[in-house]
Amino acid sequence: MKNIKVCIIGGGSRLWAIQFMKDLAVKKMSNIEINLYDIDYNAAKNNVGVAKRICEVNNCPQFKIVAQETIEKSLEGCDLVIISIEPGLTECRYGDLIVPRKYGIYQTVGDTTGPGGILRAKRALPLFFDFAKKISEICPDAWVINYTNPMTLCTAALYKGFPKIKALGCCHEVFGMQRFIASLVSKWFDVPTPDRHEIHLDVTGVNHFTFATGAKWNGIDLMPKLIELANDESIYKDLTDVCNKKIKEEKWFDCEEHLIALSFLKHFGVLGAAGDRHLAEFVPWFLSSLEEIHSYGIPDTPYDWRVRIANEKKNKIFKDDELFIEKAKEEGVDILRALFGDCDLYSNCNLPNRGQITYLPKNRIVETNGYFTINSITPSVAKEPPILIQNMIRRVSDVQDATLKAIYEDDNDLLFSAFIMDPLMKLPIKKAKELFDEMLIESKIKY
Amino acid sequence: MKNIKVCIIGGGSRLWAIQFMKDLAVKKMSNIEINLYDIDYNAAKNNVGVAKRICEVNNCPQFKIVAQETIEKSLEGCDLVIISIEPGLTECRYGDLIVPRKYGIYQTVGDTTGPGGILRAKRALPLFFDFAKKISEICPDAWVINYTNPMTLCTAALYKGFPKIKALGCCHEVFGMQRFIASLVSKWFDVPTPDRHEIHLDVTGVNHFTFATGAKWNGIDLMPKLIELANDESIYKDLTDVCNKKIKEEKWFDCEEHLIALSFLKHFGVLGAAGDRHLAEFVPWFLSSLEEIHSYGIPDTPYDWRVRIANEKKNKIFKDDELFIEKAKEEGVDILRALFGDCDLYSNCNLPNRGQITYLPKNRIVETNGYFTINSITPSVAKEPPILIQNMIRRVSDVQDATLKAIYEDDNDLLFSAFIMDPLMKLPIKKAKELFDEMLIESKIKY
Amino acid sequence: MKNIKVCIIGGGSRLWAIQFMKDLAVKKMSNIEINLYDIDYNAAKNNVGVAKRICEVNNCPQFKIVAQETIEKSLEGCDLVIISIEPGLTECRYGDLIVPRKYGIYQTVGDTTGPGGILRAKRALPLFFDFAKKISEICPDAWVINYTNPMTLCTAALYKGFPKIKALGCCHEVFGMQRFIASLVSKWFDVPTPDRHEIHLDVTGVNHFTFATGAKWNGIDLMPKLIELANDESIYKDLTDVCNKKIKEEKWFDCEEHLIALSFLKHFGVLGAAGDRHLAEFVPWFLSSLEEIHSYGIPDTPYDWRVRIANEKKNKIFKDDELFIEKAKEEGVDILRALFGDCDLYSNCNLPNRGQITYLPKNRIVETNGYFTINSITPSVAKEPPILIQNMIRRVSDVQDATLKAIYEDDNDLLFSAFIMDPLMKLPIKKAKELFDEMLIESKIKY
Amino acid sequence: MKNIKVCIIGGGSRLWAIQFMKDLAVKKMSNIEINLYDIDYNAAKNNVGVAKRICEVNNCPQFKIVAQETIEKSLEGCDLVIISIEPGLTECRYGDLIVPRKYGIYQTVGDTTGPGGILRAKRALPLFFDFAKKISEICPDAWVINYTNPMTLCTAALYKGFPKIKALGCCHEVFGMQRFIASLVSKWFDVPTPDRHEIHLDVTGVNHFTFATGAKWNGIDLMPKLIELANDESIYKDLTDVCNKKIKEEKWFDCEEHLIALSFLKHFGVLGAAGDRHLAEFVPWFLSSLEEIHSYGIPDTPYDWRVRIANEKKNKIFKDDELFIEKAKEEGVDILRALFGDCDLYSNCNLPNRGQITYLPKNRIVETNGYFTINSITPSVAKEPPILIQNMIRRVSDVQDATLKAIYEDDNDLLFSAFIMDPLMKLPIKKAKELFDEMLIESKIKY
Repeated sequence: MKNIKVCIIGGGSRLWAIQFMKDLAVKKMSNIEINLYDIDYNAAKNNVGVAKRICEVNNCPQFKIVAQETIEKSLEGCDLVIISIEPGLTECRYGDLIVPRKYGIYQTVGDTTGPGGILRAKRALPLFFDFAKKISEICPDAWVINYTNPMTLCTAALYKGFPKIKALGCCHEVFGMQRFIASLVSKWFDVPTPDRHEIHLDVTGVNHFTFATGAKWNGIDLMPKLIELANDESIYKDLTDVCNKKIKEEKWFDCEEHLIALSFLKHFGVLGAAGDRHLAEFVPWFLSSLEEIHSYGIPDTPYDWRVRIANEKKNKIFKDDELFIEKAKEEGVDILRALFGDCDLYSNCNLPNRGQITYLPKNRIVETNGYFTINSITPSVAKEPPILIQNMIRRVSDVQDATLKAIYEDDNDLLFSAFIMDPLMKLPIKKAKELFDEMLIESKIKY
Repeated sequence: MKNIKVCIIGGGSRLWAIQFMKDLAVKKMSNIEINLYDIDYNAAKNNVGVAKRICEVNNCPQFKIVAQETIEKSLEGCDLVIISIEPGLTECRYGDLIVPRKYGIYQTVGDTTGPGGILRAKRALPLFFDFAKKISEICPDAWVINYTNPMTLCTAALYKGFPKIKALGCCHEVFGMQRFIASLVSKWFDVPTPDRHEIHLDVTGVNHFTFATGAKWNGIDLMPKLIELANDESIYKDLTDVCNKKIKEEKWFDCEEHLIALSFLKHFGVLGAAGDRHLAEFVPWFLSSLEEIHSYGIPDTPYDWRVRIANEKKNKIFKDDELFIEKAKEEGVDILRALFGDCDLYSNCNLPNRGQITYLPKNRIVETNGYFTINSITPSVAKEPPILIQNMIRRVSDVQDATLKAIYEDDNDLLFSAFIMDPLMKLPIKKAKELFDEMLIESKIKY
Repeated sequence: MKNIKVCIIGGGSRLWAIQFMKDLAVKKMSNIEINLYDIDYNAAKNNVGVAKRICEVNNCPQFKIVAQETIEKSLEGCDLVIISIEPGLTECRYGDLIVPRKYGIYQTVGDTTGPGGILRAKRALPLFFDFAKKISEICPDAWVINYTNPMTLCTAALYKGFPKIKALGCCHEVFGMQRFIASLVSKWFDVPTPDRHEIHLDVTGVNHFTFATGAKWNGIDLMPKLIELANDESIYKDLTDVCNKKIKEEKWFDCEEHLIALSFLKHFGVLGAAGDRHLAEFVPWFLSSLEEIHSYGIPDTPYDWRVRIANEKKNKIFKDDELFIEKAKEEGVDILRALFGDCDLYSNCNLPNRGQITYLPKNRIVETNGYFTINSITPSVAKEPPILIQNMIRRVSDVQDATLKAIYEDDNDLLFSAFIMDPLMKLPIKKAKELFDEMLIESKIKY
Repeated sequence: MKNIKVCIIGGGSRLWAIQFMKDLAVKKMSNIEINLYDIDYNAAKNNVGVAKRICEVNNCPQFKIVAQETIEKSLEGCDLVIISIEPGLTECRYGDLIVPRKYGIYQTVGDTTGPGGILRAKRALPLFFDFAKKISEICPDAWVINYTNPMTLCTAALYKGFPKIKALGCCHEVFGMQRFIASLVSKWFDVPTPDRHEIHLDVTGVNHFTFATGAKWNGIDLMPKLIELANDESIYKDLTDVCNKKIKEEKWFDCEEHLIALSFLKHFGVLGAAGDRHLAEFVPWFLSSLEEIHSYGIPDTPYDWRVRIANEKKNKIFKDDELFIEKAKEEGVDILRALFGDCDLYSNCNLPNRGQITYLPKNRIVETNGYFTINSITPSVAKEPPILIQNMIRRVSDVQDATLKAIYEDDNDLLFSAFIMDPLMKLPIKKAKELFDEMLIESKIKY
């Protein structure tokens, strides 16, 4: 593999960026040169130090790493751009999450879809139009990997800003479902839990609202057993106690029961292939009240906690044992290796629709499997899910499309049209307008 | 025009059948021979007498009319079959309308869509599969006009039962929008109110959820003025008082303000082209409460009134002055004349999609304009409405498709999947299941 | 009907323009005002005189008619623009027709498709891009009717030059098939020959390569009898003698046997719905030699005759009895009346594909039936012909699309690609290139 | 990898079957058990001996191999079925190849398309309908690999006979183009010739009429250099001498100049991705005469030689040094390994269209890249070639579709319709009918 120059936009992050550098270290990717860019330059500079310490602690060869003061400089000569940012202060989540509650609209995450996702898009997309423009001017041949939510819309915004961009969106949600099925396989076949890579899922949908039309392990079709499980009424117990325990322990991201994913299989014939806290936000049935969603064992990540943690992270000084690595976690490094010729990879990815999803218009950003090899990603044709699932996905994608257009053209009337079409919206139009206006103001204040 | 033999299924009706016979009389269609069939044979027999009296009162030539005891006999040798029935007792409306209210689901009509529409379909469709089968055996070349709701599904059921059937669905809802626009034209251009036929609407959608992508009078494009009107905030007044007055006067079908039709134009770029009481049922925004829908000036037709009127109608003896006619009202007679060579006609109609609606799958029953001439109806290509409207229509059509399949295969699991996908449904899945089961039982009891 | 101002581009023509004015006169369309424009101003001026004499001879009210010296002036204030021109001198036909013969490529007409049609397009299309531009500036709301060949490409060029143009292409070829079927009806049903309007054809295809997927008279399906005829081997006699007689009598346009139209029905399941001399040019089977095409009774219109007649026409002085009219011939006047509110019309027309032809891409110019009413034409959905016919039409349309693009971008390499894809081309590529180059030069010299 | 039971239909072949067994041996696939089935049972029995000797000569572990007398027995318990047969005697090629010449129709191969391909299909497809039926009854879960031509139609016939069959068609033609490009890479970049696997082609089309919409080596886009080459006029030299030399040396399959593949790139924007002797047969430009095709350096494989070689092969006794192996040649073994879990593979394959080719109808057999893993093949979305190439491929696919239908329904009228639509056909219809009838008779006699 040749030398690779990588720019990380959002390089001051204490989470994603550090994990990525750990992974680079553990895979001994010494032919990598990294530019960290962050609107908070000091955060990026701190991360340079952390990166160096990671290599020392783990006895890995140092890779070249610099914090850059401008985005232009950080993009210069880059082969790969990674974008993982927070659009606006964490305090913006108040408008995204808390304001809608006053109107009876509940969201478990609120960063992808629902009123929260749309307002977050309103903050994020202008940045992405601009990133794309800069990339088109400075490093048009670079590959671009986006990790930012709303994933679909941010990636779409990159293509809107620079149609020839080589960008993809990456997300881990499918991996969680693979792990869940791996644990079932262990039980069903009385074998040690397989690695998640051994569970082959046929993925179709849009990010965070993805479905598995097929599931295999070792060539064995798992769908019959999964359907049997989904149709077993006894699994749909009230999990409010489980949820309360999670809340107490601040385990906000735990949703390993996957009852909502299984509900889709039971009622609509395909398995949800993202975490329940995401899936729940794309349909009107699970978030009618907090009690309802809690009964599925799913806590809603609280605004207060998000703000507190964000501040803690900011000031955190990493201890050496936190930097010690056993094995890589992020698929990001494997994608990097595949795109630059070190290996081939077959995995899920978010790309413009060239036909991989037959039931959505061309060019929408969609999630399917794809084959990664040197300087190339080719999406696989996804199997068509049943009509009603196609319809749900289509609705999400159409609302995303209207949202993209509205933000690109700065047209708040169209944005409101998209807003009331969101599956979580059930307010009378006038109430919806009040909410929308209030959120717009909140989103601006805190930005 | 040659002699035409017409079979009226539901020929005991005191409403539609009598109006149709009045129209035949006023147009002096003496070359018509009519078979009346009704599950209530006496009702049909009574209508024979009424028909004869209509001709006498109006000094029209008598046409041949007979009440038949079996459907087979009534279909024999027919050129045209007209179906206008009530599927099950009027008391079934209790399950359709009152039961959902207990769960917070309100419907203004409840015969087309929503939980009420789906349960009504469950009662009606098996009859239509059977009508189609009988027609295929006895009079396969006959034209079939369906007036029964749920219009789309009943017509689809005819094609399911006999794919080569020459059937169409007819509905008056578009005419109301034409009349409303005619009244606006009078005001805008300071002319006497034009006849509704002079208002040309480009119609697209499914029955009762249709939209006008264009509107012309005398070749003048009316869309700019309509958009201006829809964007005039002052028209969206609280019409609760107006509604209460209608309720008091039992004017259940009055909804001439068309604020919901105009809302669609304001927020989504095309004008609703059905009555507001229908349009409101296809989206989640207007029926969140009775207060909400009343504020648009729209009363909900009460169950009690429906039962009372049904009984009154049954026993009604028509006075001569009620049978006197000034001019024809039903387009049915014009359709009959066009299909049998008396004139050409250009009007809206519900037909299988052969391409007239580019954004829906082939063979779904859709509503567009069409050209009627002897033994032929050719649908016009409808202009594509904006993406979000396409999405709403698609959702309705996909739910209808699943409903049709579920009822045809007697698959209540699939029917429930369709049920929770209905735009009016916002209940948690378990609550929805309770409602569904309760409605199923109610629908059976009263049938 | 209000006063209508019409511009005729090609108004110096001794054929089409004069016939049109006769029709206006016979229909007593006195509320018409005409601008004649022609690159030969004198020809236009002469036609003004002819028009006045037509009114006198026929005792019709005079309509206002002026010859204009510039196209800009002639378009001013127009409601309707009619375009019927000869692109380049008649002598250009030498390159279109005679040069290909040297390479063994024969064409019966050579103005629509084949090498001749493509080269004619090369001359004509730049004019149409320009007409459209002028119309967009001077009378953007005018309706535009094109009668010029290649019809499909000239009409497409108008839309390329001004996408919002209200243009259609009109052609009589379908009428000939209606008349042929009318004569069959007379024989089959022992009735007087019906008027061609009574024969309803479901039309699909592109101009001059149109097909009837259905045929009815008086509501009776004629397809069974037509199929029987097409499968009667005895009708496919050698008509060389018939053809020689036509040649002797200079009846170049006579092809009333319709054996090629019937061949399509026999081998591919739908009836050709244009004259055989046109149909033959779109497939490789009938023009392998002059002997072959003559055996179908079809003479090829000779170049010499075209040149001679063009000169005779130019200098012709019309005698009064040639100007006397019994009844209108051109559907043009009926279209005018329909578009300006005098009547409704249902007829075939060439329009951008909005969905009327499901098997061709959107926006291609296609021929189907359509409904004409005041300020509006709505195409009907055409029935899908069998796959192999769809394929033939698709090929023609794709070649047209490449031709349009090539001429618009002045890209002779792409034009050559289109050229060798034409169904009449069977030459080796190098030979084809020689022919192409020779034709390009000829087309320029004579222009 | 578990034990695999393979059935080879056509297992008496002296070519493909022996090469496949060599490959199994060299890859030491000892967990394989093989059933050889052939209509010539002795030929199969002989091959058993050859297989054993292969293992001995190469010091490989013996695999279990048996010749079976019935196809039913040979399919029993199979995991994989490989079909590589000759449909009818080699003498049938007389009708396929020699008879059309009398009518001026030349074919280089005549086993895929053209009159020869269609008549070969007429012999082969009934066998494949039957194979599929037997597989559905005896080993419905087996994977089926077809190597027989016409590849597309034989594979389609398997799906027609058993829609749930897990069948694919495999072909080497793309590999030849990879090797050609590898040799260019060596020259262009001054490197040793890369292995063909390093040349990544984006493949689209139908078997033997495939195109590369993209070409990369080591991540470098090769299209600019390939376009430059294709546009270099100097490469299109007259290669008649080269061809004559090949003819003398009986090198019938040599066509390494790829001028026709490059012609497609020059004139239509994508590179042909099969051998020139195949590509030439799908368009009317290269086979107008033997001289023409020879000028591209392409000999036509002679009928006489085919018959002679077939007889020689039949009686051939292999010497030990002919059985000695250095490395595997057939991708067949890699596909076997991938489908049964030994490795992953990314390669071209012929499968029903599920969306991988957006410009062809669903379910047609098409050739694209695909990802092979245990018990699964997922096709990649192919990039769309330019419109005119899409059109050529569509034509071939539509003719194949009609051919399949015609043979399945034993409808010679429809088969003739397909026959005259073939791109090589340019005869008048009556002549074409004579040819068709003569070929039908020849095909039956020799069968």
